[in-house]
Order: sequence, then structure tokens, then C-alpha cells
Amino acid sequence: MPEQLDRRLEERVAALEARASRLEDHVAILNLLAMYGPAVDSGQSVAAAQLWTQDGVYDVGGMARVEGQANIAALYDADLHQGLFSQGSAHVTTAPAVVINGDTATAVAHSLVVRRTGDTYEVWRASANHWDLRRTPAGWRITERYNRTLDGSPDSHDTLARAVSG
Amino acid sequence: MPEQLDRRLEERVAALEARASRLEDHVAILNLLAMYGPAVDSGQSVAAAQLWTQDGVYDVGGMARVEGQANIAALYDADLHQGLFSQGSAHVTTAPAVVINGDTATAVAHSLVVRRTGDTYEVWRASANHWDLRRTPAGWRITERYNRTLDGSPDSHDTLARAVSG
Amino acid sequence: MPEQLDRRLEERVAALEARASRLEDHVAILNLLAMYGPAVDSGQSVAAAQLWTQDGVYDVGGMARVEGQANIAALYDADLHQGLFSQGSAHVTTAPAVVINGDTATAVAHSLVVRRTGDTYEVWRASANHWDLRRTPAGWRITERYNRTLDGSPDSHDTLARAVSG
Repeated sequence: MPEQLDRRLEERVAALEARASRLEDHVAILNLLAMYGPAVDSGQSVAAAQLWTQDGVYDVGGMARVEGQANIAALYDADLHQGLFSQGSAHVTTAPAVVINGDTATAVAHSLVVRRTGDTYEVWRASANHWDLRRTPAGWRITERYNRTLDGSPDSHDTLARAVSG
Repeated sequence: MPEQLDRRLEERVAALEARASRLEDHVAILNLLAMYGPAVDSGQSVAAAQLWTQDGVYDVGGMARVEGQANIAALYDADLHQGLFSQGSAHVTTAPAVVINGDTATAVAHSLVVRRTGDTYEVWRASANHWDLRRTPAGWRITERYNRTLDGSPDSHDTLARAVSG
Repeated sequence: MPEQLDRRLEERVAALEARASRLEDHVAILNLLAMYGPAVDSGQSVAAAQLWTQDGVYDVGGMARVEGQANIAALYDADLHQGLFSQGSAHVTTAPAVVINGDTATAVAHSLVVRRTGDTYEVWRASANHWDLRRTPAGWRITERYNRTLDGSPDSHDTLARAVSG
């Protein structure tokens, strides 16, 4: 009887360990996505790129499909982002919907680029984003970020629709 | 002695199971609210409406008090939202404060409707929101979303004040 | 043998209790930061100030370094915030990156002050924020919020960079 109890308890503890891991994964992914804006807006291009895996992809709508950390970092070192950085910008990732499947995950959210224009700010860009993520020995990282400007295009709609279809 | 230990351990495991469930509830509600913008901005009116219970209510400040999934979906199929959708819009729900009480919960957050205007975007609407939520067999759903435009009105202030009063 | 099993199980349960506490801390801090906007935008200056510890500090970039709940509340009762409040404003704290170390924690996020201007809204201010937080008998509270307007200044960049450096 006590041995049976032990076995049943152990199963419940094992189930709890799996549930705790999944919750920790969720929190880690929230933190990862929340680090993006602070990294970019403080001009830390390498730190921003390291949110991706080594061979990660950033598909920036209407601009480029960039592969690998070095190329992603170069994006933030280029004139466009240096201009935003010195002018004052907020790369905002809105609260994401996150779905975890074992060692991979997906997230969907809007992103806004807010930039200073004289005494106030403007919303310069509003985009749809879909992230593919992977658990690595160093923690969760982005394998692909797919980004499309919200300009009424089918591609921007499809990007957001992926939150709904799972 | 071992039997007493077992009993005490079992109590701790049961307490942990309740805590894990509450954390999972919190994450599920964050995900539910984060799905709203992607659903609306990708034109998926039925998916957006299904974030509510069958008889859920959307009280849209100064516009309408809409009841039931079919009527909520119709709201997103109407001219106003179709215009936003084809023009390019971001329905942003900001990071919410969530309070869970067993099988019901409440949440409070701002919402912003950002829309494309030529080369950049404008914040067309900023609102106060209070959600009542309920656990259903299909997961957490909205029973009522109460929304008021932030226009200095007592009603908009009261909506946000509910976050503070619990 | 069963006694050894018990001991090992108890260790796993103790580890789970620590993990659940840390997850609950994370959720509590998300809720605390998410309460700020609703408190300020509904004119509840005392409730807003009580998100800080008794001797908490709000270092508002370019304006003031305010210490203690009474002085922080006075900030929200002053003309500037009363003007925003009666006009209609959204103090948005974006989804934060949170790091917990036992009984203290740090968070980094952007904040936006959106205010009504006629029929639409403008982003009046966009800022970098770093919070130091502490566990108190009443729950997590802010010990210091350091805020700098995103105006291209080194100080604003440094504030966000703290998310990256840990």
C-alpha cells in the first residue's frame, strides 16, 4: 500500500515537473521577446542579433531576408537603425501569444517603431510578426522572425492569421 | 512514520498542483488577450468573436453593447473594421493586470488602435478596458469586455480604476 | 528502500516549490507593472504611489528625482498629470523583461504616454525604464524606477542597455 502510494505520488511529481518546465519556457520566451527593443534602442546590435540562433533568419517585410547573427547585427549597425538610435526610438514588441511544442515554439505579436519627431513622437511603422523559436543549450532563441508592415497586404494579414490557426 | 511522511508529502503535492493550475490559468489568459489583435487585424471575425463565450458581451464605448458571438463577429465584418483591415491596422492590447478567482477572472489594460495614414501611422483610438473571464470546457473565454475611449470621461476613468480596487 | 524513495521525492517536491514561487514572483511583477497605467490614468495618485515601497524612488528623466510615496503621489496630483488625466491619456508600460534574484528583481521596458489631441491621439512621450523591485510582506514593490526620455541621449541608451547586461 505505501509503495503504491509512493508510485502514484512520484507520477504526480513527474507531471508537475513537466508543467513547471513548460511555464518556465513561457516566461523565458516572454523575456526573450521583451529584450529585443531594449537591445536595439540602446544600439547593442550584437546583443540584439544573439536573440536569434547562430543561423537564425530575420525576414523584414519589403526590405530584406537576413540570415545569421552577423548579418542581423549588421542590419542594426546600418544607417537606418543608427539614425533611429541617435534620434530616439522605441522598438515596441506588444504582448505576444505564445504556443510551446516541446523544444520549439511560435509567437505572434504586433511591433511598433515609435520615433522622436521634434517635441513628440510618431508611430513610424506598425508590423505583423511571427516568430519560430527553438530551445538551445543557452536558452530559447529565435530561428526565424517573419515581419510584414501592416499596409493592408495579404502577406501582413497571413502573418497575424498564424496566431489563430495555431 | 513513513505513512505520515507520505501524507504530508501528498498535501504538498496537492498544493503544488493547485499553484501550477493557477499559473497555467494566468498564462492562458495572457494568450487569450494577446490573440485578439492578430485575429481582428487579419480579418478573422469569427475567430475574434470566439475569444468570447457563446453569450459573451462586448460593450464598445460610445458605439454599442453587442451580445453573442454572431453579433460580435458582425461588428468586425462591418464597414468600420473592414476599412481598418484593408488600410492596415494594429489593435494593440497592452500587457494586462490579471486577477484569477477560481473559475472566473478579471483583467484590465489599455487598448490602442493604430492605423496607417500614408507613409506612417496614427494612434486613432486609445481606450480603457475591463474584461470578465470564465473558465469553460474549451479554455478561458471572455464573458464581458467593457471598453471606453480615453476621453477624460468618468466612465473611462472608472473602467481603469477597477484594476486598482481589485 | 521506500524511505530512500521518500527522501528523494521530498527533494523533488522542495525543488518544485521553489520553482513555483519563482514563477509566481514573475507573474506578480508583471501584474504590478501592469497596474501603473490604470492607476495613473484613472487619477488614483495614492494607489499609483503604493506600487513603490514607502521610501521608493521615481527618477523621472529631465524632470525630478522624487522620493517616498507621498511625494510620488504629489507628482500625479500636480497640474501636468491632472491635465493629461482630464484630457484623456494612456500611460502604457510595454511587456517587460524581468530578472528575479531571490527577494529582489529588476525589470526593463519602454513606456509611452499617449494623449488625446482632438479626434485622435498622439504619442507625447516615449521613455526607457529600469525598475529595481523588492519583495515586501505586502508583495512585490518598486524600490526605484529610473526613467529617461528616448531622445538619443546616452542616459536613455544606458537605461535600456541594463536589460542586456543582466
